[in-house]
Amino acid sequence: MKLRYFLLLLFASLGTFGAPLPQSQEPVLFKDVRIEDPFWSPRIEANRTGCIPANYKMCKETGRLDAFKPEYKGGRHIFWDSDVAKWLEAGYYSLQTTPNPELRKTLDEVVADIIAMQETNGYLNSYFHYADPKGKWQYLRHNHELYCAGHLMEAAVAHYYTTGKRDFLDCLCRYADHICETFGPKENQMHGYPGHEEIELALVKLYKATGNKKYLDQALYFLDERGKEPLYFALEEGKRGGDTNLWQRDKNYHQIHKRVRDQDEAVGHAVRALYLYSGMADVARETGDLGLLEACKKLWTSVCERKMYITGGAGPYLGNEGFEGDYVLPTSHICNETCAGIANAFFCHRMLSLTGEGKYADILEKIAYNNGLSGVSLDGRSFFYNNQLLTFDPEPGAPREHIRKGHEHPDLHRREWFGCSCCPPNQARFVASIGGYIYAKKEDSLFINLYIGSETTVPLKDNKVRILQKTDYPWDGKVVVSVDPEKQGEFEVALRHPYWCRRYNLTVNGQKYDAPMEKGYLVIKRNWNKGDKIEFTMDMPVERVYANQRSKELRGRVALQRGPVVYCLETCDNATNDLDKLLLPKDGKIEAKFEAGLLGGVVALSGKAFLEESAKDNSPLYTTKTPKGREVDFKAVPYYAWDNREPGSVIVWLREE
Amino acid sequence: MKLRYFLLLLFASLGTFGAPLPQSQEPVLFKDVRIEDPFWSPRIEANRTGCIPANYKMCKETGRLDAFKPEYKGGRHIFWDSDVAKWLEAGYYSLQTTPNPELRKTLDEVVADIIAMQETNGYLNSYFHYADPKGKWQYLRHNHELYCAGHLMEAAVAHYYTTGKRDFLDCLCRYADHICETFGPKENQMHGYPGHEEIELALVKLYKATGNKKYLDQALYFLDERGKEPLYFALEEGKRGGDTNLWQRDKNYHQIHKRVRDQDEAVGHAVRALYLYSGMADVARETGDLGLLEACKKLWTSVCERKMYITGGAGPYLGNEGFEGDYVLPTSHICNETCAGIANAFFCHRMLSLTGEGKYADILEKIAYNNGLSGVSLDGRSFFYNNQLLTFDPEPGAPREHIRKGHEHPDLHRREWFGCSCCPPNQARFVASIGGYIYAKKEDSLFINLYIGSETTVPLKDNKVRILQKTDYPWDGKVVVSVDPEKQGEFEVALRHPYWCRRYNLTVNGQKYDAPMEKGYLVIKRNWNKGDKIEFTMDMPVERVYANQRSKELRGRVALQRGPVVYCLETCDNATNDLDKLLLPKDGKIEAKFEAGLLGGVVALSGKAFLEESAKDNSPLYTTKTPKGREVDFKAVPYYAWDNREPGSVIVWLREE
Repeated sequence: MKLRYFLLLLFASLGTFGAPLPQSQEPVLFKDVRIEDPFWSPRIEANRTGCIPANYKMCKETGRLDAFKPEYKGGRHIFWDSDVAKWLEAGYYSLQTTPNPELRKTLDEVVADIIAMQETNGYLNSYFHYADPKGKWQYLRHNHELYCAGHLMEAAVAHYYTTGKRDFLDCLCRYADHICETFGPKENQMHGYPGHEEIELALVKLYKATGNKKYLDQALYFLDERGKEPLYFALEEGKRGGDTNLWQRDKNYHQIHKRVRDQDEAVGHAVRALYLYSGMADVARETGDLGLLEACKKLWTSVCERKMYITGGAGPYLGNEGFEGDYVLPTSHICNETCAGIANAFFCHRMLSLTGEGKYADILEKIAYNNGLSGVSLDGRSFFYNNQLLTFDPEPGAPREHIRKGHEHPDLHRREWFGCSCCPPNQARFVASIGGYIYAKKEDSLFINLYIGSETTVPLKDNKVRILQKTDYPWDGKVVVSVDPEKQGEFEVALRHPYWCRRYNLTVNGQKYDAPMEKGYLVIKRNWNKGDKIEFTMDMPVERVYANQRSKELRGRVALQRGPVVYCLETCDNATNDLDKLLLPKDGKIEAKFEAGLLGGVVALSGKAFLEESAKDNSPLYTTKTPKGREVDFKAVPYYAWDNREPGSVIVWLREE
Repeated sequence: MKLRYFLLLLFASLGTFGAPLPQSQEPVLFKDVRIEDPFWSPRIEANRTGCIPANYKMCKETGRLDAFKPEYKGGRHIFWDSDVAKWLEAGYYSLQTTPNPELRKTLDEVVADIIAMQETNGYLNSYFHYADPKGKWQYLRHNHELYCAGHLMEAAVAHYYTTGKRDFLDCLCRYADHICETFGPKENQMHGYPGHEEIELALVKLYKATGNKKYLDQALYFLDERGKEPLYFALEEGKRGGDTNLWQRDKNYHQIHKRVRDQDEAVGHAVRALYLYSGMADVARETGDLGLLEACKKLWTSVCERKMYITGGAGPYLGNEGFEGDYVLPTSHICNETCAGIANAFFCHRMLSLTGEGKYADILEKIAYNNGLSGVSLDGRSFFYNNQLLTFDPEPGAPREHIRKGHEHPDLHRREWFGCSCCPPNQARFVASIGGYIYAKKEDSLFINLYIGSETTVPLKDNKVRILQKTDYPWDGKVVVSVDPEKQGEFEVALRHPYWCRRYNLTVNGQKYDAPMEKGYLVIKRNWNKGDKIEFTMDMPVERVYANQRSKELRGRVALQRGPVVYCLETCDNATNDLDKLLLPKDGKIEAKFEAGLLGGVVALSGKAFLEESAKDNSPLYTTKTPKGREVDFKAVPYYAWDNREPGSVIVWLREE
């Protein structure tokens, strides 16, 4: 080990540096960005008019909202608070974009109920307050209390940024204070950590909103306690009369198989893991902790370079909603949970902020246009928990409303709600907060991470710059950026060069600009004036994507992608419901065409495929005759938009001839 | 419904006809056939010197043998008797082929222990006799008592045919009498049936060995009681304080979802199902029951024309060791239990005997040369419970002895024994009794169903014919049959025309003979003399086999077959351990060559394949670059013989380029 590196690690191991890492980006918060974009504005509007009300309706119907009230007589559940919190968070984000007094009133009423329920010591959980007061903090491994606390903190921070009012934030600070008192290294404290990670990243948010460093320290405590022997969860099981000898798979499930700084492979429950890694990256960024940074880099590589779906999702295994081995990427009967994709976006965004490297934004973008949107229907009213890449619908064309409410074929079509309904409100908050992922700054540099029509004003070291983006991305590769500094001055505008982009043209004020590439960004460093204009035009051909040959499931298969958008085939556009019978010829021409009337306006792909289907229905089980078939037209649509028309099957990875 | 058919069904529904169906074949029993065959004699010898002693050793070590003795103090198990019974059955079959006083002594001692343990009322089960006397007949659904009884009956019949002694047979008749008293339609009888079928076919064996029709009637009772509402197993659950509302999947598991005559799709636990169907076919044959016959035909079609592996195995689903839907034929992480393949051979043989149609013998042969042998190593000493068609061995080349005894990777390599060890003794009795599947007769017709070097003497209506077969089958398609009638006379010799055979040459005494094809047989009807000789030469090219296009798992894949033998590729013969990276060119030449030193002497196949493998180990997860690879030599060996050399992976269904 090199001495310099050793010393850095030594410092890191001594605790927090107390200063952000110098290479980091500071994201421009959602509250400071206004979106006006042909792709995202309709998504945000569907989120506001469809998804957020749908979440409200189901939270109300199922008792989740009333569970905060003392007069409520129905059942309660240990993770209900988190669903409500994510809906609140989404709601307050949404109010930023579009004021809505009725929604504001609904949200504020629920917030008032939550605040009113808080115990005098700060404790705040509707299940344990009413249904099991003696159970508080007694079973961290499975009881989701710290998880719910984290989501409430995130909601309170969103509430604070949107409304400017401190009451909900103060309420959650009191809860956080109680948690800081309860959990810690002192003898009279519990040496525990959450069974479902989330509070780590939430405590950092609370720290950033309040400036109270105690919350950052508490996040670090939870991280560093994790995986310490003897394992807290083992001791807890012992106290409960259970088996203190935890199985390896259970340790993996909770990411307690190693100390977090020693972890280098993503294992266990995918959402738990990705929330943990996000919290690690947050703490690393705020404290300059290089040990955490190195672990985060390894874990990100494990997730995004060895275990990630082409759509940005992760966690194939249905049995534990978890990761599999490297390159294990089955396409049907998979988990690939909506929340895991979104959690991966969180992790990528934090790695981007932490390192300033464009490759993290590449995957953030991949999620934003694929798995991060596939969880919700175009009208915002139905949801996937699991995101399949290959399905076979035994009843294509069945009535949509029946499917939405029904329990049959749970993974084939989107549904209204789930017993464990973490995904619908997560989807709502992700879309509502997309504005927070577009821009970032660092001293005199301004970063454009996502190409979304939008406007923001960013204070740089000695200046203040208004940025206006206009684009038809992801359908068209042209992005026009107006740069309006408050005063003339030299600074950098860094445009992310997407990983999929092989050719581009870049001009500033109509003149070709030869920008150097730094960490995945095209950096334009010049003396800027009001009214300066960048034109960045990326070639966007249809591309054939192949998986690493170590992926047994994806060998011999090809996916279609254009720009960041991954495509799929659906029954309703194609000659068969059994889409895996289609073979894509290796050298067939594929046409891309924008269709304004299709799925809210998308670029669809079309070409010729070979349908391997015998005419006879009574063909034998085994035969020596070469399989027969015929040439057919195929049509592909963006994966995120599938299952919005006549119900049927889907395929992403086609066999290639 | 046609009147004639209706009347037949009406008769059938009235009960037993009491006479075998006229179209049936009467198999020549194992005891009347002497095998001398380059393929089977070594298999039978390995069975005698390896498999039967290995079963003895493990039955002894685990307590299965001593469990019959009162002084035994160890644990007992509800299905142990069946393992011992199958080993006894195998042992007595083997004594027929090769006398072996030491084995005879061992077997006879165990038989004496079993007889000595019998209760005065005839009851006979080591677990319930010693460990749970109050539990007798209390939980038919799961307690395997009738299953164990059936296997003991089969062992007793084998003992009787081999030794000529009646003591064990009489003992089992007393048990059968007790069962006949206990179970039946009368008010003072239990209206139950086995949770694991087997006794139905065993009672028919007992009937045929003793002539006592009561046993045949009892088999019919068990069949017809099955699936009757209210379900016996539901009532039984109710008595035990359980849920009387059985799930559909549990009804399917036990084949009680419908009355057996109404069943037309193979569902549930594969071994249970195939033993049941075998029993149905037995009863249909002995009684002429057309309702059962029709159900058997439908069920056979369901198994062998829609749900069977190319190797003759069945039951892919590991979760319940059971059948899946039509054409659902996954190749890895499958159950495909050794016992299910063997049970399918039983069913096919019974359908052959019942109908005289060659197509049933085709599948019997498919099993005999593939899945029916893959369950055991060439030395007879280790076993597969599950038969995978595609594996990836993470530790190729690991020490064989370590694997045999170990519990790691249970499906990748054969092991010494299993907790539930039904397969090893089933394998032993199947190989030991292969002689019983070769010949059959019907009045003046003599059928040759399998091409195995052997000799038998068959009494026909007015004659007695000695048949001597000589062949190098399955490596060579030439079969020479000497026909020696006791006296000159007209009769038929029917040679099965295998389904895989596209061209053949047939001569009688050197003269080309143009035999008509009847029900899958080439029928030679002539005046036979002593010393007559048939030469039947089948072309045996290497063939490419494709699965029905409805099989999602097997699309785009090809298997190699020559004669009845299905081939596989193993790591040790090929350029990669990850065999699914190999692509077989559509038009590549494949050479077949007998290698005397390979795997006891087999025809191996070889040719060129394309290995899709990039040189770099750090290639990205997704890429737009077309997958690279290189041409390599491939070598394929018979599937049944895999995993007998250096441990590694296997593949049957190759991707085709």
